[in-house]
Amino acid sequence: MTHSSRQITSTLRDDGQLVVELAETELPEPSGSQVLIRVEAAPINPSDLGLLFGPADLERATFEDGRIICPMPEAAMRAMAARIGQVMPVGNEGAGTVIAAGEAPGAQALIGKRVACVPGGAYAEQVIADARMCMPLPDDLPIELGAASFVNPLTALGFVETMRAEGFTALVHTAAASNLGQMLVKLCAEDGIPLVNIVRSEEQMQLLKGLGAEHVVNSSDEGFMASLRVAIEATGARLGFDAIGGGTMASTILTAMEAVAARDMPYSRYGSSERKKVYIYGALDMGPTVLTRAFGFTWDVAGWLLLPFLAKLSAEDTMRLRTRVAQGLTSTFASHFKARVTLDEMLTRETALAYNAKATGAKYLVTPSDALK
Amino acid sequence: MTHSSRQITSTLRDDGQLVVELAETELPEPSGSQVLIRVEAAPINPSDLGLLFGPADLERATFEDGRIICPMPEAAMRAMAARIGQVMPVGNEGAGTVIAAGEAPGAQALIGKRVACVPGGAYAEQVIADARMCMPLPDDLPIELGAASFVNPLTALGFVETMRAEGFTALVHTAAASNLGQMLVKLCAEDGIPLVNIVRSEEQMQLLKGLGAEHVVNSSDEGFMASLRVAIEATGARLGFDAIGGGTMASTILTAMEAVAARDMPYSRYGSSERKKVYIYGALDMGPTVLTRAFGFTWDVAGWLLLPFLAKLSAEDTMRLRTRVAQGLTSTFASHFKARVTLDEMLTRETALAYNAKATGAKYLVTPSDALK
Repeated sequence: MTHSSRQITSTLRDDGQLVVELAETELPEPSGSQVLIRVEAAPINPSDLGLLFGPADLERATFEDGRIICPMPEAAMRAMAARIGQVMPVGNEGAGTVIAAGEAPGAQALIGKRVACVPGGAYAEQVIADARMCMPLPDDLPIELGAASFVNPLTALGFVETMRAEGFTALVHTAAASNLGQMLVKLCAEDGIPLVNIVRSEEQMQLLKGLGAEHVVNSSDEGFMASLRVAIEATGARLGFDAIGGGTMASTILTAMEAVAARDMPYSRYGSSERKKVYIYGALDMGPTVLTRAFGFTWDVAGWLLLPFLAKLSAEDTMRLRTRVAQGLTSTFASHFKARVTLDEMLTRETALAYNAKATGAKYLVTPSDALK
Repeated sequence: MTHSSRQITSTLRDDGQLVVELAETELPEPSGSQVLIRVEAAPINPSDLGLLFGPADLERATFEDGRIICPMPEAAMRAMAARIGQVMPVGNEGAGTVIAAGEAPGAQALIGKRVACVPGGAYAEQVIADARMCMPLPDDLPIELGAASFVNPLTALGFVETMRAEGFTALVHTAAASNLGQMLVKLCAEDGIPLVNIVRSEEQMQLLKGLGAEHVVNSSDEGFMASLRVAIEATGARLGFDAIGGGTMASTILTAMEAVAARDMPYSRYGSSERKKVYIYGALDMGPTVLTRAFGFTWDVAGWLLLPFLAKLSAEDTMRLRTRVAQGLTSTFASHFKARVTLDEMLTRETALAYNAKATGAKYLVTPSDALK
């Protein structure tokens, strides 16, 4: 027996057109530790948009019935040669009800339960996931609080774990008014970790201050660099997590850290020997990262990604983090969504442009089951 | 009793002029483990030029009697605010004869001996150094082989040590035809370490092939990227050391590593999970480092510097490396110089422009004692 499902896929054709569509698929009967989930809600995270549209030009797309066709810039084609012709299901995480399960007891135990999962391909009516990776949700938890319980909460926890593992004591975060950023503000407050939040508007600043954030600096302000230095001095932060990626933000953070570290040192052309590091974990700006290197020779800029981080965790640490997420789903790790969209609505011009805008605080929730009503 | 000496110093004035001159100094009688060395030879390394002139505009300099005054670009002034007004002695390393010593037995034992040292300020007739950091040289060793026995040999060894400590098995090196690069070719051959040498001319390619280098790629060639990939594939190199710093070289190396790592993987927008790292240890190009990030999220770009590396070594490891240098001074770690210049000649227009050009294979040796003859 197979299960019919409609699923959002993204395919880059060799003619340079990206096709996003709702495809009919047949899912096999789940076996072993697999479960079949009727998806009720799945968030649209920036990482999903990277796969869904990436650098494709959505403004110039054509919207046919149930299909978006948009031109991919030629430079981007070269970087994505490996995905040409591959039909990529989209939607990292989601939540829903288990409607069938493989023979494994752990899978059988989930039948009828609501779970959160990271199956990849969650923008679908139904999806297959591994029961061992599913997190059961309380029955009375609103589905939008369960839908985004993996990527952002574990990323926020991952920042803090990474900080501790590498011997740092405070953090700098960019695009800090994001859903993830708001979680990080609450998490750092709970754990007593000094946090410098970099935002780009007065409105975002007020939003974070309203959550109790102590150090918020606005990169649109003229006095940004001076404020950043003061905040870095006050917190002792020497580790940053940057969601922007492109441009000079990582460089600016390192420059401010070095200015603070070198202030009371005799001059050295090589700069201070204090460790300074910025992880780039997102690509809100897909342009190149520009490092002025006006921060000596003791610095480090590296990529950071959730899945490799999780893969390196011990079973105990994994359990500890997941338990903490489960306990904080209605508080620390609560997500907020601007609007719900169905699978069909995802493919309309107005809606696609809206959720692809990556506007801070304007996160969308896909609700595939609504289409079934 | 004090000792008169003439010394090359570099001073950035607050009017934006950099002054390089031969200053008269009085050195104290050495005490404790100090020794007083009559400097016979000191190499001009790129790191010395960084302190001596940095980004100052030598073409527009005025050359007075025993004095160079050159304008510093305004942008650079901000980065170097901390050195304004400070008289900086120049010359990291050198070799000469110990002519006086403090009371410590280790210092006394060196009287009359030829030693190599890293005192900082070696472009001088005499210099004070710590006996514990001096390396005695064989009497019959030509002085130019002893003069450069610290910075380049220990840097080459440092690359290999760092590679092993971080679990990599092969190296990529840029500006690979440099004196340091030639040492690295010989060192890697001795240790059986696969090495990809990146040079920028056919002539440099032939130079390294003449030394027995197996993998040499020319960044001026049209097929550079393809050749680099082939060499990275052949060697398995996932760690690079980049002397250039500015521009896209680090990015290009990571892109080639990722292309090789991801070739046989299913497509992932996040790239391969293979570790890839480039250390920037020089600034032949002082412009910004530009990272396209077309190499997934598992990457690392960091600064690398000799002194912090040495500071972290155990006493045993330090001894092991220094012994190896001493044994290889006439072979693996032999330096080659294009010309000798006196302290006075260093301040003439023609000579200054020549040694500041940082042309590959055109290393200069300062011979302060020649002025005394």
